[in-house]
This record gives sequence, structure tokens and C-alpha cells, in this order.
Amino acid sequence: MTAPSAPLVFLPGPTALHPRVALETRAALADGFLSESHRSPRFRACLVAMEEALRSLLEIPQDHRILIVGSATEAMERIIEGTVTRRSAHLLNGAFARRLRDVAVNLGREVVEATVPDGQGFPGSPDRFRDPGVDRLLDGAELLAMTQNETSTGVRIPPDLIHALADRAREHGALSVVDLVTGWPSEAVDPARMDCGFFSVQKGFGLPAGLGILVVSPAFVERARERQARGQVTGGYMGIPALAQVADRHETRATPNMLAIRLLAAVAEDYARQGREALDGAVRRRAAVFWNAVVDLPGLTPLVEAGPSRSRTILVVEVAGGSGPLRDRLARRGLLVGDGYGPGKGRHLRVANFPVQTDPMLERLLEGLRNEV
Amino acid sequence: MTAPSAPLVFLPGPTALHPRVALETRAALADGFLSESHRSPRFRACLVAMEEALRSLLEIPQDHRILIVGSATEAMERIIEGTVTRRSAHLLNGAFARRLRDVAVNLGREVVEATVPDGQGFPGSPDRFRDPGVDRLLDGAELLAMTQNETSTGVRIPPDLIHALADRAREHGALSVVDLVTGWPSEAVDPARMDCGFFSVQKGFGLPAGLGILVVSPAFVERARERQARGQVTGGYMGIPALAQVADRHETRATPNMLAIRLLAAVAEDYARQGREALDGAVRRRAAVFWNAVVDLPGLTPLVEAGPSRSRTILVVEVAGGSGPLRDRLARRGLLVGDGYGPGKGRHLRVANFPVQTDPMLERLLEGLRNEV
Repeated sequence: MTAPSAPLVFLPGPTALHPRVALETRAALADGFLSESHRSPRFRACLVAMEEALRSLLEIPQDHRILIVGSATEAMERIIEGTVTRRSAHLLNGAFARRLRDVAVNLGREVVEATVPDGQGFPGSPDRFRDPGVDRLLDGAELLAMTQNETSTGVRIPPDLIHALADRAREHGALSVVDLVTGWPSEAVDPARMDCGFFSVQKGFGLPAGLGILVVSPAFVERARERQARGQVTGGYMGIPALAQVADRHETRATPNMLAIRLLAAVAEDYARQGREALDGAVRRRAAVFWNAVVDLPGLTPLVEAGPSRSRTILVVEVAGGSGPLRDRLARRGLLVGDGYGPGKGRHLRVANFPVQTDPMLERLLEGLRNEV
Repeated sequence: MTAPSAPLVFLPGPTALHPRVALETRAALADGFLSESHRSPRFRACLVAMEEALRSLLEIPQDHRILIVGSATEAMERIIEGTVTRRSAHLLNGAFARRLRDVAVNLGREVVEATVPDGQGFPGSPDRFRDPGVDRLLDGAELLAMTQNETSTGVRIPPDLIHALADRAREHGALSVVDLVTGWPSEAVDPARMDCGFFSVQKGFGLPAGLGILVVSPAFVERARERQARGQVTGGYMGIPALAQVADRHETRATPNMLAIRLLAAVAEDYARQGREALDGAVRRRAAVFWNAVVDLPGLTPLVEAGPSRSRTILVVEVAGGSGPLRDRLARRGLLVGDGYGPGKGRHLRVANFPVQTDPMLERLLEGLRNEV
């Protein structure tokens, strides 16, 4: 679908568009969908199709709800506003983990946190999280927030560790909340094992920006409803109890980004046909090819050491002397890679390796890197 | 641009698409815009273009800011969350005025209200609002909320009355907030005369849904900043102080609906070239033609009596015996008109008469009505 002169996009999000996006958008412009009511049978059918495709792709249990917001950032606000009265606990491994912590602080909640330096993973195995440090962190916390794949640094928490930490949270009566913005759809994080996973569509799903999705457990909704019943504020209009109620009717609370919902239905159906394992397999294979090539190139160093803490979908490379000139040379070859984020700005390359990127794209990128470093 | 078989859309929103939407969306799919960062020079230029077009079209003073959210409903939440500590005052003339009141209640604020029955306007002239009732309403209120054009009932508050009420609010130290969801761009409500006007793009602007805009005064932002400085919660991440700060840099707080911003720039530029007076002139002329025709048709009665309280852009007709069958017959002729909203469901027709609807469309609708009533 790409014209010969169009650049290849490896930006960490908004990223390259899935081929279904152009086709489905043209269809939506032609068939009147965008001028219909969000209460119309056609839009409701589209919403159901989107939900079913996500359930199939991400293995979402039937009793978990799919809630619709405007962005992953809005998701963070709705989560804290809806489910935390006093205190939330946060594992901090980068800028987006800190963002969720900041949301809690801004909303007047106490926060407790465990921090690793940017670029490092939480050490050890699921067992390590039986240590007394985790118990102290969770003591009195209503929620444990984790970032499975830190988009700012390319640090990963393996799914088995996420599941173990969610179990640990549950033992303490805390909800588990996982940022899966650049983890899903390829990472095997199981929605049945946690209370809330959220993402925005312009990253792992290859869609235009403007939609956020939360996948939430019955316990998550129940917590928000209990708080509301006790007279606590859970939101102005789009709070968790209200979003859960409309989700049960396959409706939305306000007029949503209808085009994005139709596009997500199409892309999630496509990915569900391939299956999450196949998506992850391709992502892993390309990540391995990338790192094998990068170790031979001068001045390039992986930010995250090899192993389970290194992201498969956000490949972060430290560039000796700064990343700006190399990014510019790659861009002149039609290869768009991301800058570092926050503290990594000007120092790192961030290369998206989502399901929407392809083997031939990666080959072109590696050829460009070999010629330009 | 419309195929002969495509229906003509008079739904009150999402409504008919402006012709620029299809062209500009195709361009955005082809030129890589949707895969760029929202921090990229091209997106920032688009944001500046959107702001300048809105400033020109709506005559927004340079010191007023343009803030970006996901929907008009989200705008309501950000307004109350950001600027009201204790009490807000509401003029209630329909379902969307009640929604903003409900947002304040849900966020734990006290509300005081003045109500007219659905379908009736606030009586009298700007002078009437010098009466003691208004003073009582505003006493201790931090904000006066008004709905200029009630999308649920087609009741209008004339701009001079909006301006007078905003002045009255200011005398009491209250901010004036105006729902302009189906008023702008054609209604001559002056942003310089009030503290906040807000709208979503799928109504008067003829765009796909998924974007809300607030136009706010320096006093509005200052109020939110003062509250924040006193330790009051103004939002988790996308609160008014944060949205104002990024607006000053021509940035957005999170990755926004980039396509919608580009589309709004294009349509607002087109409307700014025509000028707000020309848009309103066409809207008024078509409304007059519509009502002149309707008085001759059996079983159809305007919900709102003729005069300044009757909306020009949302034409609401009561149908003797119920509106469902007539709507169905019109739909079979390719004429889509809205159902009543809330209490009016099944009883009213709601006909959108935005700048995006045209004279030939209206002629076709009247021909359909004459044949089907």
C-alpha cells in the first residue's frame, strides 16, 4: 500500500498505519457511517464487533468489560479517580509509570513507590516479589500500578512477573492495574489475571490516535461502585461505574471517536485471525534480528541489557555522541525512527517493532543503519 | 460529492459531513500525517492553523486560549473539576443543560438552578436578568452555566441575553460558561464577552465525532490556577491549568485525535472565508423556509414558539400521534432526520440546520415532508 517514496515509519506512536486503516476509512467516508448516531444499530453492531475481536485477540473473559475513553492518559485519570480513595502503589520503571503516579498525586492521593533506574528492569523472578519490600509497598494500598512495557525506555516486565505481582496485590486487597500501551496486542499478558489493562490505539494496533481502551475485571468495577455508594466521587460523567454500565448495553457514555472504533474492530479482527502468539513470534524474531545486527555497529549500545527485561516492541539504542544526526540521516533515507523520551531525548533511538512493522521494513532499516552509523 | 443514492443527513449530530472531510482525510492517509508524532513540526503547524482559523471564524481574542479535549461531555467535566470549589449556578432549559448540572453534582459540588419547562425559553430581555431572582441564583456561585442552543429541545438563548447574563455573573465574581455545541459556528455569541464556550465537532462543524474544544478567558484559567495553588484538585493530568499551559506552546497534553484537528482546521478555514454572518444568514433563511412550510402541514407543530427562543440550527417539530412512522417514511426516501431526545423521544423530529446542510437539501426534505405527513 506504500508508495515508493513514502517513508517507512518506526516511530513509537503514532506509528505506521495498519493497511486496513486506509481501506476502512475510505469505506466509512463512503457508506454514511460517520453521519450516523452513536445509538444507531449500525454503530452498535460495530461496537460489538470491536469488543468481540478484542476478546478473541487478547483472550478477555466474558465477565471483564471493555471501556472506551479518549486516550491512555485519560484512562490513567479514570482509574485513579474511580478506584482509589487514599493510597496507590506504583512500580516506577520510566516516564509513563511516573505519569500514572503523577495522576494519583494530582488527584490528591497518597502514593508509595518502588523505583528502578531508567533502562533497568525490576530484578529477579516472580518469587522475588514475595520479599518483605513488596508487602510493605502493598500495605494499605488500594491499587498496584505496573507498566508492562515502558514506552519511554524499552524496559519490560515479563507477563509471568506481571501475573505474580497481580496475585500479590490481590492477597493484599489491592487492584492490579497494568499499562499495556506498547505491550498489547503481542505480549501474552492475560486480562483474566489482573484487574485492569489499558492501551491507546496509535501504538501496538497501528491506528490513528484518538482512542483509549480499558479492559477491567468485575472486582475493578465493584470497587468503583462501592466507592460511589459510599458517596465518594468516581467522576463527573465518564467515571468507571458509568462507563461499566453503558458497556453492559454495548453503548458509549458520550459520542465517541466512532471512526477509531470501526478501525479498531477491523484491525483487531485481522490480528485475532493471526493470533496473539503469531504476532508475538514475529515481533520476537524481528527484535532478535535487530539486536544481532546492532551489536556489530559502532557507537550503538542497547539501553536495556539482553534478557526478559528488554522490550520486544520498543527497541531503545543509546547512540554515542547523541542520536540527532543519525536520526536525521536515516530520515533522509526515508526511515523514521523515534527520539529518546524525557531524559533520553537526543541520546537514544527508539525503534517501534509492533505487529504493524514488517520483516522487509526491518531489513531496510538495518541497511540504513549499516550505511549511516 | 454525494452519490445519488446516498441519504441526505439532517441528524442533529453526528450530522452530514462537510465536503472537505473526505478530501482532507484522504490527504492525511496519503501524506503520512497520521504516523507522525504529535510533537512534530507538521502537527504543530496544523494545530496553529486550527487555532488561527477558529480565532478568525469565532472572533476569539488573542488572550483567550483554545483547549483540546475528547468531547463536549469531557469539556463539562474539566470545567467543573477545574474551576468550582463549592457551588455552581445553572440555567436549565433541556437535557444538555441538565447534564452539566449533573456533572457538578457527581463531582460533589452544590448546585443552584433556574429551570424552564423543556421547549420554553428563558422569558424576557437582558433587562429581566437584573431581577432579584438572578442575584439570588448567583449569590455565592463560582460559575454560571448556560446552554445557548439546547440540542435536545431546540430552545435558544439569544446572544445578547447570553452576554448580559455573563456580565451579571462577572458582577457577582462568577465565571460564565456557555454550551455552544449546536450554536457555534453560526451564532454570534462573542467569546470576548464570556469566560468559556465549548463545543464538539460533529454538530455545527460537520466533522466525524471525537473532539471537543473549549475557548476560555484569562480569568477562567486564572481561577483554575488559583485553586491549584491553594492545593485544590483541578484534574489528574488533563486539568485546565495543564491544558492552558500546553495551549500556550501550541502543544497538546496527550496524543490527541490528530485527524480531527486537521479536519477542524480545514473546515474552520472554509467557514472563516465565508464569515460567521454569512453562515448565520443562510441558517436563518433556511429555518424561515422550513417553518413557513411546516405551518401548512397537518399534524406538525413547532415545539418552540416563534421568536428569539426558537433555535435556528436545531428545528424541533412535535408530530401528532408520534414521530417514529414519519421518520421511517422519510428514511425510505433517503432523508434522515433525528428523533426527539430524552422526554421527546418518539414524539419529536429534530432537524439539523447547520452550515453544513444546504438549500437543495432542505428543498428535498420539504418535498419529502409534504408527501409523507
